[in-house]
Amino acid sequence: MTSSIRPIILSGGSGTRLWPRSRADRPKPFLDLIGERTLFQQALDRVNDTAQFGPAVIVAGEDHVVHIVEQAADQPIELIVEPCARNTAPAIALAAHRLARDDVMLVCPSDHFIADTAAFLDAVRAAAALARDGNLVSLGITPDHPETGYGYIQRGTPLDGGYRVDRFVEKPDSETAAFFVKDGSYSWNGGIFAFTAGTYLEELAKFRPELSRLVASAAQEGSGNGNIFRPAAISFSQIAGESIDYAVMENTQKAAIVPVTMGWSDIGNWNSLFDARNGCSRGAHELIDCNRVAVDTDGPRVSVIGLEDVIVVVDGDEVLVTSSKSAQKVGQLGGAKGK
Amino acid sequence: MTSSIRPIILSGGSGTRLWPRSRADRPKPFLDLIGERTLFQQALDRVNDTAQFGPAVIVAGEDHVVHIVEQAADQPIELIVEPCARNTAPAIALAAHRLARDDVMLVCPSDHFIADTAAFLDAVRAAAALARDGNLVSLGITPDHPETGYGYIQRGTPLDGGYRVDRFVEKPDSETAAFFVKDGSYSWNGGIFAFTAGTYLEELAKFRPELSRLVASAAQEGSGNGNIFRPAAISFSQIAGESIDYAVMENTQKAAIVPVTMGWSDIGNWNSLFDARNGCSRGAHELIDCNRVAVDTDGPRVSVIGLEDVIVVVDGDEVLVTSSKSAQKVGQLGGAKGK
Repeated sequence: MTSSIRPIILSGGSGTRLWPRSRADRPKPFLDLIGERTLFQQALDRVNDTAQFGPAVIVAGEDHVVHIVEQAADQPIELIVEPCARNTAPAIALAAHRLARDDVMLVCPSDHFIADTAAFLDAVRAAAALARDGNLVSLGITPDHPETGYGYIQRGTPLDGGYRVDRFVEKPDSETAAFFVKDGSYSWNGGIFAFTAGTYLEELAKFRPELSRLVASAAQEGSGNGNIFRPAAISFSQIAGESIDYAVMENTQKAAIVPVTMGWSDIGNWNSLFDARNGCSRGAHELIDCNRVAVDTDGPRVSVIGLEDVIVVVDGDEVLVTSSKSAQKVGQLGGAKGK
Repeated sequence: MTSSIRPIILSGGSGTRLWPRSRADRPKPFLDLIGERTLFQQALDRVNDTAQFGPAVIVAGEDHVVHIVEQAADQPIELIVEPCARNTAPAIALAAHRLARDDVMLVCPSDHFIADTAAFLDAVRAAAALARDGNLVSLGITPDHPETGYGYIQRGTPLDGGYRVDRFVEKPDSETAAFFVKDGSYSWNGGIFAFTAGTYLEELAKFRPELSRLVASAAQEGSGNGNIFRPAAISFSQIAGESIDYAVMENTQKAAIVPVTMGWSDIGNWNSLFDARNGCSRGAHELIDCNRVAVDTDGPRVSVIGLEDVIVVVDGDEVLVTSSKSAQKVGQLGGAKGK
């Protein structure tokens, strides 16, 4: 009999590119952007089968705590509150220190969307098996277009239920991305990982001994209160923040990949959000002579005439109008910067 | 010594193409669309020199009365309230019946914009002189682009201060409009006229005897209260509504024209409004990677990215986003129709 899988849900960032719906006090994971449950709730829902999963561990910043407590009220979670943001490698290490060495960690972002939960769970089972064999496993998202905004992972020789990783590739140019999609051996790096706590901490110590030491210290000197654990700020704040990709995955010889097609989206901007919504608008609107115009309004009616590939978002005291292809620039707006 | 000129200001319609700023309960003439005074107030201001002009006569529908009384509070106006809308020929006739036969009427729409008041007044003096000689005078707007939305007037032989009218032309196609602009002998018909009350009523009786009879009856059987006159509804409602252009100007042998260049705009839609505003936006807004994008917002900030030739209007519970060239379709929107 195998030990259960522990979901590790990383909750960070505010998602300025989904401004004005996402705001400093209403971060992206806690919005019901698709469906009636928020992205964070959906992340919990996907791993709520107690036959497979133990209680989820949420690693989050202080400003997310109020939302997590509210939205996970009915679930037996553990919450690790980071004193400051130090990227994913330390966040995952904090969670690893709270688990047994043989526990399988399933690391998931809190703000992505997955349409096909069954495909996700199938891939998780395969990844967990590889993790128990000592691998550090990425779920590799099968690309459906030559996206230049994601990293890619090339698979190598087959393993049972997955593949050895041949190499990690940083965000490519569009020509390279097109080649990757055509080639068929590349997956998007979606930030979903599986490994045992022991394997992760060993590899982290091997490649980032100083980071590893400081996280261990922060975990050891932290304080718990009920299901909330606060690492020691003095040690944690000294860490040079780094992603799991840079710190561990790109260095380890134990990287494996389980490719999966599951209707995944990182909901990185309004354009990808409307893609995930199949182009459907929300709220009162009327369109005349429009093609591929999408509206999201929290109240006022939005009337659009004679436009193509345009997104209109109304949220309280802010109105956003952007071409679809400029949606990734929303974070540059004064409003998105809190000005 | 000549008698003073009586301004006749026609206030009708709601301007649905300027929705959502103009609404059924906030008609276009009574909005401060350009500058701090409303279009109606500017129409009064242009003719407020008592050395040249007598008190203005406003002809308006019942739903405009509250706005007129409020906005003309400091001016000695006379107000004729039409029981129903019957277009311009009867409206002007009602005013003519309230004046002496020799009074020069200067008929002006209440919802147009004129940038150069001095040029307007020069043209009015020339038109008034021709009017006193028994002509029915149009102020002809010098066209600055091949507009297909206006009627054109071709001038003929010179008169003192103007020209005999050669012909009136209905809204042309774009090829014809381009020819008119190039030709140089055509002006836009801007709906501004000068004639004596007697001349107008004689010509109206000649070409539209039934209309003429019913208006006379409505005027005779109407009732006055202070400076407000209400024609008899029974007679007036029987009138087949018709414009002064169709009923009189296109038929009379006494038509004259005074061409004028005065920065005129009928502010017929949001695109022409922003032209008259020199493209300037109003209210809080931020534009990134935009060309010829104009914003008018009554509160919420509007942020626009990556668009060209787009107009965004926010008014309370309505948001309008239109391409500049589709601005004339705003009246087709459910909101503009009061739905």
